[in-house]
Amino acid sequence: MTFTAAVAGASGYAGGELLRLLTAHPDVAVGALTAHSSAGRPLGESQPHLASLADRTTVPTGAEALAGHDVAFLALPHGQSAALARELGPDTLVVDLGADFRLRDADAWRRFYGTEHAGSWPYGLPELPGAREALRTARRIAVPGCYPTAVTLALFPAFGAGLVEPEAVVVAASGTSGAGRALKPHLLGAEVMGSMSPYSVGGGHRHTPEMAQNLSTAAGEEVTVSFTPLLAPMPRGILATCSARLRPGADEGAVREAYAKALAGEEFVRLLPAGRWPATAAVAGSNSAQVQWAVDRAAGRLTAVCAIDNLVKGTAGGAVQCMNLALGLSEGAGLTVNGVAP
Amino acid sequence: MTFTAAVAGASGYAGGELLRLLTAHPDVAVGALTAHSSAGRPLGESQPHLASLADRTTVPTGAEALAGHDVAFLALPHGQSAALARELGPDTLVVDLGADFRLRDADAWRRFYGTEHAGSWPYGLPELPGAREALRTARRIAVPGCYPTAVTLALFPAFGAGLVEPEAVVVAASGTSGAGRALKPHLLGAEVMGSMSPYSVGGGHRHTPEMAQNLSTAAGEEVTVSFTPLLAPMPRGILATCSARLRPGADEGAVREAYAKALAGEEFVRLLPAGRWPATAAVAGSNSAQVQWAVDRAAGRLTAVCAIDNLVKGTAGGAVQCMNLALGLSEGAGLTVNGVAP
Amino acid sequence: MTFTAAVAGASGYAGGELLRLLTAHPDVAVGALTAHSSAGRPLGESQPHLASLADRTTVPTGAEALAGHDVAFLALPHGQSAALARELGPDTLVVDLGADFRLRDADAWRRFYGTEHAGSWPYGLPELPGAREALRTARRIAVPGCYPTAVTLALFPAFGAGLVEPEAVVVAASGTSGAGRALKPHLLGAEVMGSMSPYSVGGGHRHTPEMAQNLSTAAGEEVTVSFTPLLAPMPRGILATCSARLRPGADEGAVREAYAKALAGEEFVRLLPAGRWPATAAVAGSNSAQVQWAVDRAAGRLTAVCAIDNLVKGTAGGAVQCMNLALGLSEGAGLTVNGVAP
Amino acid sequence: MTFTAAVAGASGYAGGELLRLLTAHPDVAVGALTAHSSAGRPLGESQPHLASLADRTTVPTGAEALAGHDVAFLALPHGQSAALARELGPDTLVVDLGADFRLRDADAWRRFYGTEHAGSWPYGLPELPGAREALRTARRIAVPGCYPTAVTLALFPAFGAGLVEPEAVVVAASGTSGAGRALKPHLLGAEVMGSMSPYSVGGGHRHTPEMAQNLSTAAGEEVTVSFTPLLAPMPRGILATCSARLRPGADEGAVREAYAKALAGEEFVRLLPAGRWPATAAVAGSNSAQVQWAVDRAAGRLTAVCAIDNLVKGTAGGAVQCMNLALGLSEGAGLTVNGVAP
Repeated sequence: MTFTAAVAGASGYAGGELLRLLTAHPDVAVGALTAHSSAGRPLGESQPHLASLADRTTVPTGAEALAGHDVAFLALPHGQSAALARELGPDTLVVDLGADFRLRDADAWRRFYGTEHAGSWPYGLPELPGAREALRTARRIAVPGCYPTAVTLALFPAFGAGLVEPEAVVVAASGTSGAGRALKPHLLGAEVMGSMSPYSVGGGHRHTPEMAQNLSTAAGEEVTVSFTPLLAPMPRGILATCSARLRPGADEGAVREAYAKALAGEEFVRLLPAGRWPATAAVAGSNSAQVQWAVDRAAGRLTAVCAIDNLVKGTAGGAVQCMNLALGLSEGAGLTVNGVAP
Repeated sequence: MTFTAAVAGASGYAGGELLRLLTAHPDVAVGALTAHSSAGRPLGESQPHLASLADRTTVPTGAEALAGHDVAFLALPHGQSAALARELGPDTLVVDLGADFRLRDADAWRRFYGTEHAGSWPYGLPELPGAREALRTARRIAVPGCYPTAVTLALFPAFGAGLVEPEAVVVAASGTSGAGRALKPHLLGAEVMGSMSPYSVGGGHRHTPEMAQNLSTAAGEEVTVSFTPLLAPMPRGILATCSARLRPGADEGAVREAYAKALAGEEFVRLLPAGRWPATAAVAGSNSAQVQWAVDRAAGRLTAVCAIDNLVKGTAGGAVQCMNLALGLSEGAGLTVNGVAP
Repeated sequence: MTFTAAVAGASGYAGGELLRLLTAHPDVAVGALTAHSSAGRPLGESQPHLASLADRTTVPTGAEALAGHDVAFLALPHGQSAALARELGPDTLVVDLGADFRLRDADAWRRFYGTEHAGSWPYGLPELPGAREALRTARRIAVPGCYPTAVTLALFPAFGAGLVEPEAVVVAASGTSGAGRALKPHLLGAEVMGSMSPYSVGGGHRHTPEMAQNLSTAAGEEVTVSFTPLLAPMPRGILATCSARLRPGADEGAVREAYAKALAGEEFVRLLPAGRWPATAAVAGSNSAQVQWAVDRAAGRLTAVCAIDNLVKGTAGGAVQCMNLALGLSEGAGLTVNGVAP
Repeated sequence: MTFTAAVAGASGYAGGELLRLLTAHPDVAVGALTAHSSAGRPLGESQPHLASLADRTTVPTGAEALAGHDVAFLALPHGQSAALARELGPDTLVVDLGADFRLRDADAWRRFYGTEHAGSWPYGLPELPGAREALRTARRIAVPGCYPTAVTLALFPAFGAGLVEPEAVVVAASGTSGAGRALKPHLLGAEVMGSMSPYSVGGGHRHTPEMAQNLSTAAGEEVTVSFTPLLAPMPRGILATCSARLRPGADEGAVREAYAKALAGEEFVRLLPAGRWPATAAVAGSNSAQVQWAVDRAAGRLTAVCAIDNLVKGTAGGAVQCMNLALGLSEGAGLTVNGVAP
């Protein structure tokens, strides 16, 4: 059986990546493609790398265009999903790549987004304990943010096993596609190449409450997150370097056991062999996450690192993985674990 | 039916890319993996992006390891294929990614490689007139060099239609993976990033006679090629900028017709719509070639540009495409036309 | 004696580079800084790397701001210099980094720029025979375009000695700062990194007639230029690969002599030792040009390559070099020959 | 008066950068240049960007070559400075860019370097309270490591004012020139571009005890440092993201005052205006450090960020700054505060 999938926001980076994955998916046929300013134009103009869809024309974003598909992916600026989703019936599986339905805490939403909370949907990180089961029956799915995906995969095993104090310190570097296709001076190639810089320092990044939500869920207690995102001179990839103070008695053996157990059997999360460390190049183009950790005895901290492709496992690949679960397909259908390197 | 494929040279860039493609191929099972200095080690050490093969162990390169497979891919330094191929029986399809059997002219071989000519095998560029049919029955295939692939796809339509004088001028920029994994100072990241530089200027690059061979075949007369390769600050991709003087009477209409006709129906070569130009990012990770041309009336020249991924269409993807033909599979099996971008 | 210098267009890339050089110049004091959209803001906002001028405020571009300085540099979009220059008296040396006064041929100007020709000023490439003397007494100077600077330095020795046919083929790769700070999608970092692509193929680039003008001047006959510019994944630098058919009897010895003679004594053009080739990284941040050539006997062509920093020797450094000549200072004052590498 | 300076290790990245700075220094003449494997070769081969020294020949490293100069810079692998320094008399100012004499704690040295401690020299970070005065009379100077320079400048104001708990968490990304010119597979351009990865995770990096030493000095109590270095896809630059838990009562006002006071009057450290953040591109090629901080109230932490050019302020520029102090020159002689950007 082939499922039809519509993509709202087909001309952006997230939408383009989704289409790259969906065209390779054995059980999906690509349906309507919607866009905003480029609506009515051939997709080949905005996505010159998608040769197989080059002559497909986008239509204006709206519920009519999306209705009648088995799945509707929303790759839209935050704040635009809620209204659109309401117009789509329960027959359509709605997978939102935006932020609107990720947070359960309405106060946190208002504090970080400044608008009314639209509610929360089943959270699309299957590796988080409990999440996979909920996704199998979901008709509405909130795909995690790219940074929270990497940070959660790096740290949830330690928090889940109660090995660290509930205060995480995270510094995560992202390729510039994470900022989308916005025409901003600091995203110009000449500014970006050769440069690293932080932004939203001091707790202001909107992904912070989502990380705290996930780690608190894993820990069973409230976890605070000090998060500094960095813009890195590469098109794709997130490298999240995360640490927390070890609790008394939490030694290397306990950490090893916790990570092995928490990540056992996960198709898309690879706990690396001892001595090897994640690299964004190794996961580029794939749905894989690479995870490794180390105990710093002198500093009394656990440091865990996760590398993902922000556009795949961090966005479009995560969305397809969730869709697979909700449609009863093999979880890895249409996805690859092997990166495109060098 | 599933075919077994062995890869000699599994720890290099070409071998790694081949494995990335073969693990995604619906009709192929990856068999023996051989290596030289890293033989006996897990593949995950040399190819950390190939998660699905991370625990496979490489064995020393030799005919015993390759024998018994339906296909043997040789991704070895030039000069090592001939001896190995002789030891493999006719039951094994041998696909050589090296240079040993590409040139038909023994003199040209000796001049550029300095050793005895081992002979020539059916040439693995299906898009070149006549080549596809020969590949369908071949048991030995010489995969083209990366530069000749791009240059030939850019220019053979013009030469084939007799539109240009038999003197091509080619400047082609390559990502640094084209130089392989050799530990040379000028290939260090700190040297490469932010830098463009030429090498083998003045006709000395070994891909020059191969380009001349292909274009001469298309033209039906001897074509000379002035070729300058450039090292570009990117990991992958070739952009070939090629030109030749237009013959009297050869106008835009004739060029348009020649390219449209020569490239019609080719799954992996996309003649771009008017006004759009090839970019290496648009074909990264895919087996696609993007081609576009322009007539410069003031200078009296035709300029044609082709972008490919040097490791895919220029090496491993081309090899898989040839294998598909020789095994009677769909020519595009296991290959994608969509690039990984941005 | 200290000369005062005003810079119109201080918030752009060319203006910023000019200021970097002028702040290091022993004989110059930086005067008024003008800008367009960012007028009234501290320079530190648009040029965060210019720490010594971070608190200086820009004023709107206009003749009043520039008047009263010994030198006025115009780093403005083309078409804006002519009107402004007319309002500045002869006491002010005007150095135009834009295109308005580069071309002597009014027809060529109209064909490539589509507006009326404003006239021509002494051409600011001191290395071109005859140019240096004219610059010593000039009060108005047209600084060359970045591509023509590199191409002219690569080829004028050969054309000047009559060694090649009057048809040059040029492929030149530029870092993305050459496109200025324009907010265009294809200049975003995520698009640029990992990608090479051509533009203005087929003779349409506005620097083409300027190259033809310079090479024709050197050759004493009309030279046509087939020019293809490439956008390269680096912030700075131009690598120009140029070739032309050798005339009968023009051998390596004649070429060697021509280049040695033409470039002898030039402080900022370095003819590399045999076997070494130009690289953009080697000239980054400096006013140096690296030049090397090779004869391809099989193809019957001379290939010459030049690397410059597009923002220094190709723009701001060239402008300072010209200013030095016109003010009677040492030609290299405030400039460096050593690049910032790696 | 002109001082003569010899450079041991002239063919490496640190040595090359030193020579770039020294050739621009108004009070220094470059004397002997020594090298190891490239001794006897023209400097232009190993440092093609240093046009002004291209024809200078290097000699084997040894005390004879260095003796008789006013200053000897040692840019050698760690462990080689001690023996060499002993052979140089007190008339020669010895500035060591290596690690041998940075640590005061012999135990820490042995733990991280595994050899006997050679002793400690005046520490070449003039901005650290007390250091500048000692440098003015020093004849032996230990230039700080690149990471410790960035981390110390980011955090010493907070520790010096007692505002934070004595446990720093540092994640610092470095351009690949920081790894030197070693021929290692993971430093190849094809591996580095597009990739971020950590190394020496868990406290093993040799710069860790140096950071702890500096911050402990500033704090007046023992400070532990959890340090994770990252390899970033750029040739130069360090971005250090540092944080520590705020002590009760330490609010934004106190932090603001501490940073303003600690960095007041420093020529090479620029505390950025509110809302602006350091970027490595803004300091490339310059001796500047950019610093900014933010208080994260929810997480209870202070985050401070510093960007430097690892080869300038982090190595060669820091060395020249120290030399200037020791020779009684202006502290900023031969150095620039303006970066080379974009």
